[in-house]
Amino acid sequence: MQKPIILFGGQSYEHEISIVSAISLHKAIGAQCAFVFLSPDRRFYLIDLIDMKADHFSSGRYRKNAELFLARGGFERKTLFGRTPIDGDVVISVAHGADGEDGKLAALFDFYGVAYVGPRLEASVLSFNKRWTKFLALCAGVKTLPYQVVRRGDAIDLPYPFILKPLRLGSSIGIAVVKSQADLSYAIDAAFEFDDEALAEPFIDGVSEYNLAGCKTGETWRLSTIEEPQKKEVLDFDQKYLDFSRDGKAKEARLSNETAEALREAFKKIYDQGFAGALIRCDFFVVDNEVILNEINPIPGSLAHYLFPDYETTLNELLAALPRPKQIAVTYNYIHSIKAAKGKL
Amino acid sequence: MQKPIILFGGQSYEHEISIVSAISLHKAIGAQCAFVFLSPDRRFYLIDLIDMKADHFSSGRYRKNAELFLARGGFERKTLFGRTPIDGDVVISVAHGADGEDGKLAALFDFYGVAYVGPRLEASVLSFNKRWTKFLALCAGVKTLPYQVVRRGDAIDLPYPFILKPLRLGSSIGIAVVKSQADLSYAIDAAFEFDDEALAEPFIDGVSEYNLAGCKTGETWRLSTIEEPQKKEVLDFDQKYLDFSRDGKAKEARLSNETAEALREAFKKIYDQGFAGALIRCDFFVVDNEVILNEINPIPGSLAHYLFPDYETTLNELLAALPRPKQIAVTYNYIHSIKAAKGKL
Repeated sequence: MQKPIILFGGQSYEHEISIVSAISLHKAIGAQCAFVFLSPDRRFYLIDLIDMKADHFSSGRYRKNAELFLARGGFERKTLFGRTPIDGDVVISVAHGADGEDGKLAALFDFYGVAYVGPRLEASVLSFNKRWTKFLALCAGVKTLPYQVVRRGDAIDLPYPFILKPLRLGSSIGIAVVKSQADLSYAIDAAFEFDDEALAEPFIDGVSEYNLAGCKTGETWRLSTIEEPQKKEVLDFDQKYLDFSRDGKAKEARLSNETAEALREAFKKIYDQGFAGALIRCDFFVVDNEVILNEINPIPGSLAHYLFPDYETTLNELLAALPRPKQIAVTYNYIHSIKAAKGKL
Repeated sequence: MQKPIILFGGQSYEHEISIVSAISLHKAIGAQCAFVFLSPDRRFYLIDLIDMKADHFSSGRYRKNAELFLARGGFERKTLFGRTPIDGDVVISVAHGADGEDGKLAALFDFYGVAYVGPRLEASVLSFNKRWTKFLALCAGVKTLPYQVVRRGDAIDLPYPFILKPLRLGSSIGIAVVKSQADLSYAIDAAFEFDDEALAEPFIDGVSEYNLAGCKTGETWRLSTIEEPQKKEVLDFDQKYLDFSRDGKAKEARLSNETAEALREAFKKIYDQGFAGALIRCDFFVVDNEVILNEINPIPGSLAHYLFPDYETTLNELLAALPRPKQIAVTYNYIHSIKAAKGKL
């Protein structure tokens, strides 16, 4: 197996969650991995395995670790005579939220020719923004709830209760249920703290929710257990935070074969919209036997290891089947031909 | 004025066009700029002004120029004692096609905190893919032609004549008009050489086409002359290539005030979908007095200098009004609170 580098952190509202995710992943599969932390000021640090504890980061002690630099082919560290590559040849990103899920790190890895597990650039941008997720689901032929994109000051045309979410964010941050006019100003303040745009959707009390993770390795689907998450009304940040540090294994939800199969089919249709190379989790509602996509987590909490009975096999298969960016052969045919026709350009 | 770095090249089918664009821009506004070339193997080089000629690049002589490295805050060059920043504090990107227009360079600049003229990450991804451009126009309330996204082997449900384009590419590369069954196999080969997906749209013979460039600086719109481009059936790559090296000024198209105003309104609606920081050109059709978006060029050829009577003022206003990425203040509140509640994490 290639030596994976687990990358976490980033300048993001989900920075802390990413740390918790990485610690959880360290417990699950960490022994054979390297860990690289992306600090809030966007420096990379190589973290010793024994330092994979939350307070190493919250205390700032990580700054004593070796700083790394992203270069062609991978990470390098400074040496007396220049820079030298570190051990590790494929990145597994658990940088949730901005930097990781918004496409910046995907772009960096593609640019520098670094292999990685995670959503590619286009899939990142489309799934980071809830409006574009709606269009992505439309292209995939998977239903979503009706919605309205709102800016501050816009009237919201949905009946109560509805849910208001920042347009570009995950992990339940800034999300609020609006049951009546009285809840509105709090919900608006919460959502617009994190983005200039928000998404309003109907809130369906007591709706059945199911989580399903997976990836495609070559032509083979590797799908997880389908879990019915325990929940209050909406998972708030504190709950989700604890959820990111799960280490047990999830239980299969009680579902008819038809519904389970419909969930798996919807997952595959979404994944086929450009998620090759990533292990994603889709969260679905089931209403009147109909599958509705709620959200796509292109880098799910703790990379969803708790959802897979045999996680290491899945991850190893994915590592072996990462998409390779098309190499574009640049030629200078036009410059040569025009130079020949016109003399010097 | 800040010292701009004009960035061009990239690993892209439009690499050569980007060189021509940069040379054209050098002639137009180059004296006070630095020039940085991104080679096909993705190394950055600082180019002397006297070397801004096409054969400096096609011959590979650029490799003798100083190699640059992207780091926090900007480009650095190697020195005896490490690395030192180069002169220049804002990037103007004319890297057309992949790397430049697909969002990779936007992501790099955002990540490393480099100010730049060009589409931001999300706007890049949406305008690089012709399917997402359709949805973007839909969100903006601007009409586009009906279309079908096709993969190799799909039946195309449009009547002849239609036009087939690679889904993710600009500069007329791989585009062909299909007038009958006889043209189909060439058009399919042309399109799928460059992408796994293509877009089919009706081809409207003799349609009126208008180009309009511009940007928004703060609350002020800076819109160009509206040009009716000279054309054959479709501008092919050779023609466009020459078009990228234009140095004259464009003539205002003959249009009614109503149509000109409708074009400007459509431009503004598109631009407001996330193009702040970029100088873009929109190409429109007008059919039965109705404005239809044909394409968005988020980094237009030679940055559309020939479309502006007073280009330097426009560019300087834009440089002074570049969007600043929101700084996210990372805290460790949750880790601290959970640590307090549970003991050591």
